Amino acid sequence: MKGIKSMSIIGTGNVAFHLGNSFIESGIPIVSVFGRNTSKTQELADLWKCNVAASISELDSDFVLVCVTDSSIEEVIAQLPIRCKVAFTSGSIDLVSFSERKNTGVFYPLQTFSKEKNVNIFEVPILIEADSSDFAHELFDLALALSSTVHFASSVERKKYHLAAVWANNFTNHLVYSAKKYLDNENLNWQLLMPLLKETLDKLNYLNPYDAQTGPARRKDLHTIDSQEKMQEGMQKELYSLLTKSILETYSKHD
Amino acid sequence: MKGIKSMSIIGTGNVAFHLGNSFIESGIPIVSVFGRNTSKTQELADLWKCNVAASISELDSDFVLVCVTDSSIEEVIAQLPIRCKVAFTSGSIDLVSFSERKNTGVFYPLQTFSKEKNVNIFEVPILIEADSSDFAHELFDLALALSSTVHFASSVERKKYHLAAVWANNFTNHLVYSAKKYLDNENLNWQLLMPLLKETLDKLNYLNPYDAQTGPARRKDLHTIDSQEKMQEGMQKELYSLLTKSILETYSKHD
Repeated sequence: MKGIKSMSIIGTGNVAFHLGNSFIESGIPIVSVFGRNTSKTQELADLWKCNVAASISELDSDFVLVCVTDSSIEEVIAQLPIRCKVAFTSGSIDLVSFSERKNTGVFYPLQTFSKEKNVNIFEVPILIEADSSDFAHELFDLALALSSTVHFASSVERKKYHLAAVWANNFTNHLVYSAKKYLDNENLNWQLLMPLLKETLDKLNYLNPYDAQTGPARRKDLHTIDSQEKMQEGMQKELYSLLTKSILETYSKHD
Repeated sequence: MKGIKSMSIIGTGNVAFHLGNSFIESGIPIVSVFGRNTSKTQELADLWKCNVAASISELDSDFVLVCVTDSSIEEVIAQLPIRCKVAFTSGSIDLVSFSERKNTGVFYPLQTFSKEKNVNIFEVPILIEADSSDFAHELFDLALALSSTVHFASSVERKKYHLAAVWANNFTNHLVYSAKKYLDNENLNWQLLMPLLKETLDKLNYLNPYDAQTGPARRKDLHTIDSQEKMQEGMQKELYSLLTKSILETYSKHD
């Protein structure tokens, strides 16, 4: 590693777990790990064959990757030895929040991580930002060791990608949850939706989502929409109506 | 084909196109096609090497698959020679609507179809219903010639699957459209979302969507939610707020 000589990780959540594993697999050692949860920290230390740091101020690497929840980043970075270069993995926190410190940066993987599911980091876009061009290039090189898709992005751009990711992942997953919950409640087999879900994604390799749209709202089939609204209640019905309204508006403007 | 001896198709839309192609590929000939749009009908006749029927009443097969929009099904079936067995491909229309006619059934593929995108029908669940056990089994066998997943489903069950499919496909696709539109407007690269979309689906092979959920609303990160709401306006903001509320409610009940 040019520039970055040794790395520690702070955090024991999904992002720490997957990025840490990916560094180890890429032959980049982690010298120490720190986390509030003692048993989780020990697990990661065992996995990565590294030290558990007794405190943040005692971390002994020249670079620290901070993989903690947004609300803890400031507090964590404030405790870091001033000699440490540091990057955090959040989509939403402004780099300028740390402008009084030197060698601060962002290492943001545009992906959803759950511990139970492996992720091929090589395909994950990593967005890089730093307070100096030198440190930005060091982080860029570090990211290239993991991923084929590394981009520089300002804090403003990163926040926009993060918001788009909320739509593309968090919200779509919640809709799939809603579909499953509905079928579960009706004692029907939600696995029958899997080929449809697969095709929903596969289509986007051939068509943009505007052209890929099908269904009652796309066809302006108000009879089916009315009958489907009546099959639902509460939040489910509210969401159905608003999403349908949004599709109707999208295509009334353009047809 | 046991029972069903010869098949015609009515309709020239996405469903007619894909099911017709799939029958031909499975070695099941189509003897004639009828559609309101003359040039589209001729195209399908050329593709399937079959006749164009001059009118619905002149269709000369013993079985007719009606692949037209929901609001036209009744009118189309009323014109069919009484000797014809008939099935329609709609998710929403009750079979009982045609109780005065014999040999009526449903052949509903639980999938999204666009002409520009090939679909592997072998993986598409086909839901079967008919007015007699004999005809139901004939349709079941016909569906098995195309797909590995064929199920009997009542009209009520089929409507529920159709509604779940609206959530799983139509609404998720619209959210991806929303994400793309947002990034396009901001001159950012929506292709960076593709690995995330792929992972969103891939996760569901390992985790159910309840456990797969991540993001600000899942973490109850009200600060990020507030800041993301301020980045949006109009329908986009309304949808963001309602979807976020729904995720917050889902996990406040269970955590």
